[in-house]
Amino acid sequence: MRMYDILQKKKRGEVLSREEIRFFVEGYTKGEIPDYQASAWLMAVCLKGMTDRETADLTIAMAQSGDMLDLSSIEGVTVDKHSTGGVGDKTSLIVIPILASLGLKAAKMSGRGLGHTGGTIDKLESIPGFCTELKQEAFLKAVQTTGAAIVSQTGNLVPADKKLYALRDVTATVESIPLIASSIMSKKLAAGAQCILLDVKTGSGAFMKDLEESRKLARTMVEIGRHAGRKTGALITDMGRPLGYAIGNSLEVIEACETLRGKGPIDLTEVSIRLAAGLLELSGFSKGEEAYERVKLQIQNGQAFAKWKEMVMAQGGDVSFIENPDKFPKADKTASLLSDREGYILSMDTEKCGVASVELGAGRERKGDPIDPYAGILLRKKPGDFVRKGEILAELFFAEKVNPAAAEKTLLEAYRFGDAVPAIPPLVYESIM
Amino acid sequence: MRMYDILQKKKRGEVLSREEIRFFVEGYTKGEIPDYQASAWLMAVCLKGMTDRETADLTIAMAQSGDMLDLSSIEGVTVDKHSTGGVGDKTSLIVIPILASLGLKAAKMSGRGLGHTGGTIDKLESIPGFCTELKQEAFLKAVQTTGAAIVSQTGNLVPADKKLYALRDVTATVESIPLIASSIMSKKLAAGAQCILLDVKTGSGAFMKDLEESRKLARTMVEIGRHAGRKTGALITDMGRPLGYAIGNSLEVIEACETLRGKGPIDLTEVSIRLAAGLLELSGFSKGEEAYERVKLQIQNGQAFAKWKEMVMAQGGDVSFIENPDKFPKADKTASLLSDREGYILSMDTEKCGVASVELGAGRERKGDPIDPYAGILLRKKPGDFVRKGEILAELFFAEKVNPAAAEKTLLEAYRFGDAVPAIPPLVYESIM
Repeated sequence: MRMYDILQKKKRGEVLSREEIRFFVEGYTKGEIPDYQASAWLMAVCLKGMTDRETADLTIAMAQSGDMLDLSSIEGVTVDKHSTGGVGDKTSLIVIPILASLGLKAAKMSGRGLGHTGGTIDKLESIPGFCTELKQEAFLKAVQTTGAAIVSQTGNLVPADKKLYALRDVTATVESIPLIASSIMSKKLAAGAQCILLDVKTGSGAFMKDLEESRKLARTMVEIGRHAGRKTGALITDMGRPLGYAIGNSLEVIEACETLRGKGPIDLTEVSIRLAAGLLELSGFSKGEEAYERVKLQIQNGQAFAKWKEMVMAQGGDVSFIENPDKFPKADKTASLLSDREGYILSMDTEKCGVASVELGAGRERKGDPIDPYAGILLRKKPGDFVRKGEILAELFFAEKVNPAAAEKTLLEAYRFGDAVPAIPPLVYESIM
Repeated sequence: MRMYDILQKKKRGEVLSREEIRFFVEGYTKGEIPDYQASAWLMAVCLKGMTDRETADLTIAMAQSGDMLDLSSIEGVTVDKHSTGGVGDKTSLIVIPILASLGLKAAKMSGRGLGHTGGTIDKLESIPGFCTELKQEAFLKAVQTTGAAIVSQTGNLVPADKKLYALRDVTATVESIPLIASSIMSKKLAAGAQCILLDVKTGSGAFMKDLEESRKLARTMVEIGRHAGRKTGALITDMGRPLGYAIGNSLEVIEACETLRGKGPIDLTEVSIRLAAGLLELSGFSKGEEAYERVKLQIQNGQAFAKWKEMVMAQGGDVSFIENPDKFPKADKTASLLSDREGYILSMDTEKCGVASVELGAGRERKGDPIDPYAGILLRKKPGDFVRKGEILAELFFAEKVNPAAAEKTLLEAYRFGDAVPAIPPLVYESIM
């Protein structure tokens, strides 16, 4: 088999065999196939596409390029969720404890924030003592005992994706549904859970800004999961506005705690319940309205919050911060962003909200950059709200050394005003179960 | 300017600016743009194409990536021809002396044979003493004095093409009209002639086997030449059968000598006259039927052959071989290929004829392989001929160490027989002037 012939076939839009796809993934991971052939292949895939079967084969070959987490020692149904990334999206901190409180097992590997989107690991690390770097054995033991653990990606997981992603990033081959789907799903398959729920964000703050594209991505990922023998579903949720009011790591942990106590923002609460109910359904636990009510009850009866405390404790976090979020240190400085006009907020450029939070120190432009765990934004007004001139739109939190002018400008630009009450889009566009 | 953005644009099928194309060509030639970005770009060009303007800009930037031959010191109109490569195509050896005998100036750089197609330099080097490696000064002086010289590509000519071609060759991005056209035309532009005639071969022995594709390539190259301010034309000629009867270096020189003396095969003579007349027309010397008759006369009055001898002498070749081709050494061994059936020869797989000649030692599979200047094939039968079983189809010439069995098998497979007189395609399909 020659990479040249595989390139030729894909260039002509022909369908590659499982063996050809495996030959490419294994050869590229080992360094036997050079970058210049891989990048030509990626461009051909971007422009000629792949069938569902090819995409599944690519994903499975990628997942098998390194270690595969073996969750078979864990009793019960293992579940996982993945969000394609958003602004103010702290649903993992809410959904995982809910599911664990219902007896499901979540061995979750998460990432750090990059660009305008935040990451679960950064959020958890704002809790003093919380350890996200568990050895595999300790990780599995925590899941078995507590029902859930969230760690940063460990070991030699999906090296093919690391190499391919780095190459896509410099060859303008990121935007391709089969490549995006295989990148995400290869990590989910390697992470080992039986049931996988994908939260595909759509709108101005999402990676996919277009609903139709988001639908395609969701369907492609669900197909991959099913091809690979996992119970897989997806919700397409709105990222045309930030989820909740808090953007920034400790601020988001505090909002997640409030939501787990039943006092969270309506949008965040609703999306979290829908996600948890979706996984309940995938796991065969319960269905539809019943699953929804079952999840809601876990918040109302305090069991979800109790499980959250248990999780934090098991991973070395100081639970007193969870019980009393006022203990979280405040950022050095704070500023209020005032409205320069009167009117209804029609919509928000959610990506700009994320960029503003990065400008305040809450996120990072490049991998490895340090972040300020206490920096961020608390929105006071969101789409649908009426604002008078001079009213507070948001409060900004930042370190002494940060000049908030850039963030203020960016955030103000994120708001779109109008004179009539706007129609607010749904929180969940579609459920693929 | 960033290569990433250029990739993104071409991936989306957008038109690149002259500055963007120049940025890529210069950056890649200098090694500032890595192979993996260049190969992704090449694949995007293969699949999204380029406009005539983009293709011309690419070609001019490539031509300017290294030395540009300055022919301004040569008095008179400078002319050049280029064939896209064929089997038995020795027209350069005929056309160049004809043009020089008419007072035009041909500073021609040629290549060596590769794969199933032969190369002018290999053919010339079968003439004892003939030197194809002239220093630039000697080259220009020979053109000025004799009217023509043919040398192998010298100096740092179009380094961008060398790098890009090597990359295309391993990334399945060879088949693309804009990339093929820019590769050929960048070398023609750098070679400096004012008038350029392209002989675009079409059919089973050509690089482009399909007439419509050959037309596109011809038109694209003519457009490039005109964009670059050169008088450019093209003939699309048939390579559905070998040109003439001789395939192999000294054998082809002998056939070229016969043709220049007015005793050559009809097809080779006709195509050579049409090519020379085409350049006469481009140079403004004469037109149409008049140009055709003018060229024919140069053969009949012996001036073309006299110029050929003068050229050979000026480049150090032993003219006695040209005057008396019997002096050319014979290959060690010879074999006759007999027909295994009776019938009309309908057509030939011309590429197979070229492959058979390589198998006999007349050509090379890889760059740098040695060749046998006296090996090759003399066809006895060509499409349209009637053959009886056991009649000689061709004579094979080869060295002692060569087993001719493979070549015999290949060549026999090249012949297609039938029971009715076949329609023979035209020698020249189209003229773009």
